[in-house]
Amino acid sequence: MNERVREILGWYGSDNPGTKANLARLLNHGRLGGTGKLVILPVDQGFEHGPARSFAPNAAAYDPRYHFQLAIQAGCNAYAAPLGFLEAGAAEFAGEIPLILKLNNSDTLAKGEPAPAITGSVDEALRLGCAAIGFTIYPGSSLRNEMYAQLRGLAEEAKRKGLAVVVWSYPRGSGISKEGETAIDVVAYAAQIACQLGAHIVKVKPPTAHIEQEAAKKVYEKQRVPIGTLAERVRHVVQSAFDGRRIVIFSGGEAKDTAAILEEIRAIRDGGGFGSIIGRNSFQRPLREAVEFLQQVMDIYAGKSK
Amino acid sequence: MNERVREILGWYGSDNPGTKANLARLLNHGRLGGTGKLVILPVDQGFEHGPARSFAPNAAAYDPRYHFQLAIQAGCNAYAAPLGFLEAGAAEFAGEIPLILKLNNSDTLAKGEPAPAITGSVDEALRLGCAAIGFTIYPGSSLRNEMYAQLRGLAEEAKRKGLAVVVWSYPRGSGISKEGETAIDVVAYAAQIACQLGAHIVKVKPPTAHIEQEAAKKVYEKQRVPIGTLAERVRHVVQSAFDGRRIVIFSGGEAKDTAAILEEIRAIRDGGGFGSIIGRNSFQRPLREAVEFLQQVMDIYAGKSK
Amino acid sequence: MNERVREILGWYGSDNPGTKANLARLLNHGRLGGTGKLVILPVDQGFEHGPARSFAPNAAAYDPRYHFQLAIQAGCNAYAAPLGFLEAGAAEFAGEIPLILKLNNSDTLAKGEPAPAITGSVDEALRLGCAAIGFTIYPGSSLRNEMYAQLRGLAEEAKRKGLAVVVWSYPRGSGISKEGETAIDVVAYAAQIACQLGAHIVKVKPPTAHIEQEAAKKVYEKQRVPIGTLAERVRHVVQSAFDGRRIVIFSGGEAKDTAAILEEIRAIRDGGGFGSIIGRNSFQRPLREAVEFLQQVMDIYAGKSK
Amino acid sequence: MNERVREILGWYGSDNPGTKANLARLLNHGRLGGTGKLVILPVDQGFEHGPARSFAPNAAAYDPRYHFQLAIQAGCNAYAAPLGFLEAGAAEFAGEIPLILKLNNSDTLAKGEPAPAITGSVDEALRLGCAAIGFTIYPGSSLRNEMYAQLRGLAEEAKRKGLAVVVWSYPRGSGISKEGETAIDVVAYAAQIACQLGAHIVKVKPPTAHIEQEAAKKVYEKQRVPIGTLAERVRHVVQSAFDGRRIVIFSGGEAKDTAAILEEIRAIRDGGGFGSIIGRNSFQRPLREAVEFLQQVMDIYAGKSK
Amino acid sequence: MNERVREILGWYGSDNPGTKANLARLLNHGRLGGTGKLVILPVDQGFEHGPARSFAPNAAAYDPRYHFQLAIQAGCNAYAAPLGFLEAGAAEFAGEIPLILKLNNSDTLAKGEPAPAITGSVDEALRLGCAAIGFTIYPGSSLRNEMYAQLRGLAEEAKRKGLAVVVWSYPRGSGISKEGETAIDVVAYAAQIACQLGAHIVKVKPPTAHIEQEAAKKVYEKQRVPIGTLAERVRHVVQSAFDGRRIVIFSGGEAKDTAAILEEIRAIRDGGGFGSIIGRNSFQRPLREAVEFLQQVMDIYAGKSK
Repeated sequence: MNERVREILGWYGSDNPGTKANLARLLNHGRLGGTGKLVILPVDQGFEHGPARSFAPNAAAYDPRYHFQLAIQAGCNAYAAPLGFLEAGAAEFAGEIPLILKLNNSDTLAKGEPAPAITGSVDEALRLGCAAIGFTIYPGSSLRNEMYAQLRGLAEEAKRKGLAVVVWSYPRGSGISKEGETAIDVVAYAAQIACQLGAHIVKVKPPTAHIEQEAAKKVYEKQRVPIGTLAERVRHVVQSAFDGRRIVIFSGGEAKDTAAILEEIRAIRDGGGFGSIIGRNSFQRPLREAVEFLQQVMDIYAGKSK
Repeated sequence: MNERVREILGWYGSDNPGTKANLARLLNHGRLGGTGKLVILPVDQGFEHGPARSFAPNAAAYDPRYHFQLAIQAGCNAYAAPLGFLEAGAAEFAGEIPLILKLNNSDTLAKGEPAPAITGSVDEALRLGCAAIGFTIYPGSSLRNEMYAQLRGLAEEAKRKGLAVVVWSYPRGSGISKEGETAIDVVAYAAQIACQLGAHIVKVKPPTAHIEQEAAKKVYEKQRVPIGTLAERVRHVVQSAFDGRRIVIFSGGEAKDTAAILEEIRAIRDGGGFGSIIGRNSFQRPLREAVEFLQQVMDIYAGKSK
Repeated sequence: MNERVREILGWYGSDNPGTKANLARLLNHGRLGGTGKLVILPVDQGFEHGPARSFAPNAAAYDPRYHFQLAIQAGCNAYAAPLGFLEAGAAEFAGEIPLILKLNNSDTLAKGEPAPAITGSVDEALRLGCAAIGFTIYPGSSLRNEMYAQLRGLAEEAKRKGLAVVVWSYPRGSGISKEGETAIDVVAYAAQIACQLGAHIVKVKPPTAHIEQEAAKKVYEKQRVPIGTLAERVRHVVQSAFDGRRIVIFSGGEAKDTAAILEEIRAIRDGGGFGSIIGRNSFQRPLREAVEFLQQVMDIYAGKSK
Repeated sequence: MNERVREILGWYGSDNPGTKANLARLLNHGRLGGTGKLVILPVDQGFEHGPARSFAPNAAAYDPRYHFQLAIQAGCNAYAAPLGFLEAGAAEFAGEIPLILKLNNSDTLAKGEPAPAITGSVDEALRLGCAAIGFTIYPGSSLRNEMYAQLRGLAEEAKRKGLAVVVWSYPRGSGISKEGETAIDVVAYAAQIACQLGAHIVKVKPPTAHIEQEAAKKVYEKQRVPIGTLAERVRHVVQSAFDGRRIVIFSGGEAKDTAAILEEIRAIRDGGGFGSIIGRNSFQRPLREAVEFLQQVMDIYAGKSK
Repeated sequence: MNERVREILGWYGSDNPGTKANLARLLNHGRLGGTGKLVILPVDQGFEHGPARSFAPNAAAYDPRYHFQLAIQAGCNAYAAPLGFLEAGAAEFAGEIPLILKLNNSDTLAKGEPAPAITGSVDEALRLGCAAIGFTIYPGSSLRNEMYAQLRGLAEEAKRKGLAVVVWSYPRGSGISKEGETAIDVVAYAAQIACQLGAHIVKVKPPTAHIEQEAAKKVYEKQRVPIGTLAERVRHVVQSAFDGRRIVIFSGGEAKDTAAILEEIRAIRDGGGFGSIIGRNSFQRPLREAVEFLQQVMDIYAGKSK
């Protein structure tokens, strides 16, 4: 096994061999295999935003098989989706790419404090041949404690059964402002919480330079924590994830044109981020274009391109 | 086995042979057996609207055995009902028609945010010899997450025990307007959610051309999704159900006279819908008339009539 | 076995032999044994209204043994009570009369939306040698769904363990008016719900001619459902209980003097009701008088008196 | 075994030998052993009122061993306390006095509708060698149904595992007035509820002549239930506990000086009460004085003193 | 084994040998081993206050291994942290220092009545080789009863599996004022509650002379409980923890400069406190300085320095 992968696995000393093997599967698969970097294709937007908003721009994407194909052709490290989407392709593409079953999801048809529904289980992940479970928490929501407790139980079970645990840590809810959702202090805090809850891999949004919490602001200023550039902020988030001893990857953010996205990817790479998880920005393009785009992203992480 | 049925079963690659066999039972039974189309008789109105509103127009329908007889004589693919109604005939009509046990139901004697009560279990479905469980979700209700989580657990158990899962996905509740309950974006979204939650068969209402959600409206317009006719809207809903790789059937809607209903059936057929689930519009007619009516519907789906 | 009892047992084709045997025990016991009619003594008023209101009028009734004796001497089909009252006599009177353990009860010491507490279990019913469990639901309460779900679970367990299920279906709560609690549409609906939830025997209150729900009113009028006399209304309720294929019995109502009660019993009999469940109107009389009264009631059902 | 104890055990015909043996242990232990009367030392005030309010008046009582010693030296039938207090002495005093583990307790550091926290389990009671579990219910609280349901489950488990069940039935909460907490109708009702929930031994407060509930008032007046003296009221409460076939004991009430307390004890005895459970009025005195006081109380019950 | 440790273990007579052995591990480890005193390093601030506020002042502390090293080098009795932090070092430092897994934690990203989330389990503590579980309760919160019930269950399981139970008892919430959180009556009450819930070791904050509860005030004044100095207040808290038969340790408080902290430590020692649990005041210093500081604290407890 590659030295870098071995080094990363070394950070997970409390896990059993089954979980370590699945982490290795994620790290060794695809175009970035062995580099210690990851690019994951996540497709939960059908549940989260509805089918037309997600798939009408590229109608081939209505077919669940499309996303398996895209992730495989592009050489992603893994493909993550809710139960239904994985069920619809797990047999046909068995063994071709590591899968992550998202165990909770939110739709946008009702109002109220943000809270996802449980939509999958660890045993379903095993049944579908997954390498990992995925779980979303919303720090800042008044219902966060339920999410943390659910994650705790699912993560314990996943680890006992040899799976890896990927946590989407997305601050939102009545405890923080809209701007605060991507504030550097809040994103770093969200990464820390996910790690403390036992995540192997944490996904956060690229942070802005805004600081949400008054008590945090004083510390950032007094300690002169560098947060001026995105690379610096990524570095701070990675540091906040157990000083870089947990894998932190970043979502595509709101950037729209390719150049801007790639610019962001470079900043994530420069800040020591472990990779990206890119949904809409990839699968809403035609297949060939999407593959090309994802490979550009990967090449940045691989150091093959600036 | 018929090619079309074999093709459809192929979409359910993650299911075990027991569940596949029960899907085949549903698809191969009755007048539409082998066509890949389904007409199901559902009778939960006694619970949902009360006995007089449901059965007084055709007093023979107070007797639970009546509905077994109607479904069998008409040649429906299956008969779906709550626990009590199935208990009252499952032995007498054992093996004569595939049964679907509805595991939750709502009455109309109390107010508040819509939410069904759990009224059955997977083990009860097995005890009564059912081929599938049925479950209703109300996307748009502030209590939807509980419903999704309940369905998740029941669907996992049903699949493990070799049953199929039929989901009634009926948007309603404080998150959407009355008109929005049948809006095309909402119905397509509801179909997508049911599929993502692991449904094998999804039942929705025929959608109108109304678009409920602002964010969706932009996409429908920009992408010029055709939703002008019912057939187009049905096609969009079927597409939203994993690009047609999940079985989507439609409820009878509010149409009242036979001609209008049959017109609607033709549109569903033309849009690629997999069939209908028709309750009040059938069992509130005298037996012979109801049989005749249901067979007219089936003949449209079978392509035997325009 | 008696033909009528055999016929009634035939309605419960989905039940196992243990449950059928316990239904037979209820139908074959006492003065009405074999007639297909039942008179049951229920004594939960100590819990529901308090001891003085229940027992001070006939102080012998403070003693739990009194009710066993009354039910046995009068020749009732069964005696129903909460846990404590059954525990206090089940050993002494073991085998002398079928027992029904009421698994939930409400006191009148607190306010709020009506909801009973769970006060017993199926295993407790087995431990005490009962033939059936009893359970109360309040259709119309905003908490009804919890009651339905509780009943569902308990009924499934009871049936698996060979017990019969008796449901007290008493509409009340914020969803209906006070007058609506005994409205004919509501009582018929309540009977239907209990049957759909899997009850073998349903207890309702004698209905009035009031119609509570607007949507129901239209149907009663259009279909000219006869509800002018109590006998007609009883017939409609029995019809609403699976066209008479579930046992429906009636509570004593609010009638006070004996003549009025017996008049009501005759109407129930004439409408095809299966019997009565009479608490306060029996045990608040001196023993001999109570026995005589109950036997008068039974003789009406048995056709031995007008 | 003593005739009176044998008679009392006869009331508990539904219990298994293990539970009967533990009831016998309670009835046969200490100075009142064999008389059918009980004096129990309860010490949950540290949890309920805080340590200083409970133990500062007699600082020796901060030590959990003190209460074991007091109960043993005074010859009480049993000692009842929460988990921590029993854990701190159960080994040292193993076998010297029957123990009752209180399974729920309330502190006075927060506001809101009264509701105790679950603080112990049946298995903990077995681990500590207890003869019984203790449980508090608050009839009148809007949360009472949860308490009843918890008690139901714990009592079933305790009986299955051979323990006795002691219920503190203390009306309070938004359903009744402050004065109503000790009203004769409410206290009698509270005793009835505890018995119906399956208690072997019920503890209530000495009732006043106040009648809280309008519906009850009519009955007390019409039936002329004698409630003028404390002895009469105790007699009525005992009658309300299954006509005296359940053991009812009384708390110390608010009486402060010894003469008043002893006067109250005589009234309880004269009314047929089975004994007392005396906390603060005993352990807040110096040991020798407390022993003397408790023995005076016992002698009244034993008929050795007026 | 040391006499003092043997004496302390004697207070836990109800525990099994496994739990006693783990208590002995805590008491015998490190610089204070065998003295009966403890200094524990707790690091949950990353979860409770966020990473920058916690670790930016000493960036080495972002690395979870840092805290293991600090606790080991300083000779602490134990190191306590949430799941993630322990997972990240438990293998590397296996056997080098007793570990305490904190099973619940609160973040500061949302508002509302204080309540921690469950973030670990007893089995996780066993998996990571811990000697004890840690659990926080908030007496004064309207949600305290849930915390007590959770602790009850976890403590029962921990004791059955041979672990010790450490309870952080921190009054807060709508039931008490801000000043009341450290009031002497409240802190003593909080210690009592933790002991009654079965804690082996209790952590509280150093109390002030403020008295929060009116009913308590009367007793403190009447009984002249000495609470003028911190040492007196510590003595009262220790007395409130079963007359000193439970181990009570104190958090660092808000003192900021070293001299003030050490002054406080001396008062805790003089009042009979069993030690300290010091987080921010240690790990926010550079390693060498932190080690030195912690050893100064330990030397005070060991009697090696004034």
